[in-house]
Amino acid sequence: MSATAQIGVTGLAVMGRNLARNFARRGYTVAVHNRSYAKTASLVADHGTEGTFVASESMADFVASLAVPRKVVIMVKAGGPTDAVIAELVPLLAAGDIVIDAGNAHFPDTIRREAELAAHGLHFVGTGVSGGEEGALNGPSIMPGGSPESYAVLGPILESIAAQVDGVPCCTYVGANGAGHFVKMVHNGIEYADMQLIAEAYDLLRLGLGATAAQISEIFAQWNTGDLESFLIEISADVLAHTDPVTGAAFVDVVLDQAEQKGTGRWTVQNALDLGVPITGIAEATFARALSGSVPQRAAAVGVLPAHAAAWDIAPEDRAAFIEDVRLALYASKVVAYSQGFDQIAAASAEFGWDVDRGAMARIWRGGCIIRARFLNRITEAYERDAHLPLLLADAYFTGVMDDGVGAWRRIVAAAALHGVPTPGFSSSLSYYDGVRAERLPAALIQAQRDFFGAHTYRRVDRAGTFHTEWTGDRSETAL
Amino acid sequence: MSATAQIGVTGLAVMGRNLARNFARRGYTVAVHNRSYAKTASLVADHGTEGTFVASESMADFVASLAVPRKVVIMVKAGGPTDAVIAELVPLLAAGDIVIDAGNAHFPDTIRREAELAAHGLHFVGTGVSGGEEGALNGPSIMPGGSPESYAVLGPILESIAAQVDGVPCCTYVGANGAGHFVKMVHNGIEYADMQLIAEAYDLLRLGLGATAAQISEIFAQWNTGDLESFLIEISADVLAHTDPVTGAAFVDVVLDQAEQKGTGRWTVQNALDLGVPITGIAEATFARALSGSVPQRAAAVGVLPAHAAAWDIAPEDRAAFIEDVRLALYASKVVAYSQGFDQIAAASAEFGWDVDRGAMARIWRGGCIIRARFLNRITEAYERDAHLPLLLADAYFTGVMDDGVGAWRRIVAAAALHGVPTPGFSSSLSYYDGVRAERLPAALIQAQRDFFGAHTYRRVDRAGTFHTEWTGDRSETAL
Repeated sequence: MSATAQIGVTGLAVMGRNLARNFARRGYTVAVHNRSYAKTASLVADHGTEGTFVASESMADFVASLAVPRKVVIMVKAGGPTDAVIAELVPLLAAGDIVIDAGNAHFPDTIRREAELAAHGLHFVGTGVSGGEEGALNGPSIMPGGSPESYAVLGPILESIAAQVDGVPCCTYVGANGAGHFVKMVHNGIEYADMQLIAEAYDLLRLGLGATAAQISEIFAQWNTGDLESFLIEISADVLAHTDPVTGAAFVDVVLDQAEQKGTGRWTVQNALDLGVPITGIAEATFARALSGSVPQRAAAVGVLPAHAAAWDIAPEDRAAFIEDVRLALYASKVVAYSQGFDQIAAASAEFGWDVDRGAMARIWRGGCIIRARFLNRITEAYERDAHLPLLLADAYFTGVMDDGVGAWRRIVAAAALHGVPTPGFSSSLSYYDGVRAERLPAALIQAQRDFFGAHTYRRVDRAGTFHTEWTGDRSETAL
Repeated sequence: MSATAQIGVTGLAVMGRNLARNFARRGYTVAVHNRSYAKTASLVADHGTEGTFVASESMADFVASLAVPRKVVIMVKAGGPTDAVIAELVPLLAAGDIVIDAGNAHFPDTIRREAELAAHGLHFVGTGVSGGEEGALNGPSIMPGGSPESYAVLGPILESIAAQVDGVPCCTYVGANGAGHFVKMVHNGIEYADMQLIAEAYDLLRLGLGATAAQISEIFAQWNTGDLESFLIEISADVLAHTDPVTGAAFVDVVLDQAEQKGTGRWTVQNALDLGVPITGIAEATFARALSGSVPQRAAAVGVLPAHAAAWDIAPEDRAAFIEDVRLALYASKVVAYSQGFDQIAAASAEFGWDVDRGAMARIWRGGCIIRARFLNRITEAYERDAHLPLLLADAYFTGVMDDGVGAWRRIVAAAALHGVPTPGFSSSLSYYDGVRAERLPAALIQAQRDFFGAHTYRRVDRAGTFHTEWTGDRSETAL
């Protein structure tokens, strides 16, 4: 077997299969391998005409079919299966070869694997790939980490199979070792927030206006022509327009109202807690899904917990203004969720020495991935204006968004509270907004309490140093 | 040396020293040991008259001074230092001896250590001890895990040194291995929520009424005579009444408004994410502290982010009603935070097989610890009425609290939104309340989105099974 393949893919479930086809369609000779050969054979049988595949039954033949430096994409289940494939591959590879994990690894695993493979002289590229099956085939958003040397070789190939927006590929070098999988994790966390906020907007329109799913679909379709233009708004409009073929009812009304999750939202929030970055939008979205699935609690509460909520009766002439308020509140809350997520990327970048270009991350999310949206251009522009922007919200464009929207946002959060509509995302984001802009927070009282019961000390506004008050004694102050 | 000591303490920093003195004062012969002998000597020199101490320089002598079965309390730093002391102790002990870790261990470490020591025939008791230095000396709240056999021997001793409320000790057996440290962790998480909610109430009174710290102190002192009676309200009143001796200003106004944290709030939220339990009150409190310490973000935001908040001008005749609304909102939010925390205990108890008695946990928190409060009796009573209560909020007493307070709570959350006061705790708790009692959540739209972009499937309200719609095809539905 001659070593002719420019890239290889092992693991040919639907994501790996579609990535391999994407490479082949772009003109690369693609080595393909799967633990059981049946999937390899069916890929070649079904799609062999799309390009040049080199199929191997054994891992050794697969590796032997690759031109050096070898570039092997692993697309198997995260965790143990990934480690098993790496262990099988390593003895077959040579210094300078590149192993690419395109699965959904947790970034600490990627950091560990990169170090282990570097010890063998191998490059390890942990890369986020977003866009699902469809994206893998036609152009995903790709977020590769690893060494700059490996990106010099691999980058052009990945960029060529990525989604393209305005002629710019949705793929760029993210940073060393775990940076790619980290950024993909935050992407998914932001996706949780985005979806929750859209769901709250839907709920407000449903309960505030008594609107049908079809009517809300039209409102969303309208919103999709403006600042909120995005894949998630678009598919929400699609979903809401869909009629259940079984009952003839609106489809959304026959779906069980329990949202599931696969874990990346949870990882994102857990990491933000470690880093000390307040990502309340993502946290509330993650917990909102957990709440929706808290079946015994909900069963105990419905009809038992008193509502005392005001009835909602919006006059016909006020309905358009209400819809516009919800739109502005949604946009403002969304901006907060992104601002928080980009804070988390900055904090991790500093912690792990990744030097992530946040504006470039927004750019490669414009296509291919689930959160693709028009307003990502505004984020890229903000970081182009100031690469070290300490807070996305404070960029001139976004303060303008707030200037336009914060009044509406306040009205909507207040109305939701009074009318008994749960808006954890909208409300929490507004509290964050009012917290971060507050000249003075009541955290001073908390720190004083901590000094009182635990001698945890405090700092003062008027001089440097750390202090403790003898609370149970003469209340004198000691400088420490 | 004769083996006469009934209990031993190794690690004589302030917590260990005070625990040893507490044991001695209750009439136990206490073996004491510290890595450096100076602390041991000073304990005996300063407090030897309080009881019978047996001081040892070496760990071997310390162990030899203990009557069998030996009971050794370790009070050193969590993590490596605890493991080091255990490693030194184990070869000196015999089957049936009891090792007690009274430090702030993370419960997975306790689970691991319990298994390791059980392999040596030793009992390992990871115990939460709350109440700080003061509590350790005069009566803490004690939350011991481990084997029931070890509690039969050790329990009476711990119960005798614990805080006593109405003649009932604030100590009871919690459950196997990590249960004690787990419950202590959730206790601390609830403490975060409690403190944040009090801080928000303070902020609302400060900004709503333009009240001085001294005036708010009086309001809190008044609240402390009713349902909100608690250590934290009491010390908040104390703190707010305190005048800074340096400047003559209200003390709280000279404290830097950045609240610090030691990590148990973070652990609590991270664990709740793993368990899928929505503890939004604790999460928002933890993130509020992080936000207060986000110095570059706050610096970028203050004076830059537009407020568009309504000015607050409460008429004199409405001020009392506003104060009462804040009180009711605080109580309602606090009940939610506790309800969520007890949900987390129930979920962990099921996950780890601990069979924790939640009513007993509320009972042992009534004294000694930071969150001690009158209303814990109401929680104990609720679980006495129904040990398997699926949701604390749904107990008759607490639905009564909500019946009284939810209207006020809605008004306060709405007012905070309109007037630009950050109330992440109040707002998030209300959203949780309206979420858990909702007959229908917009999570259905989220699950439909997930099926649309990721084929994650959905369930239906009208039949069992799992389904997928061919969104990009003919939109037919497949049962899976």
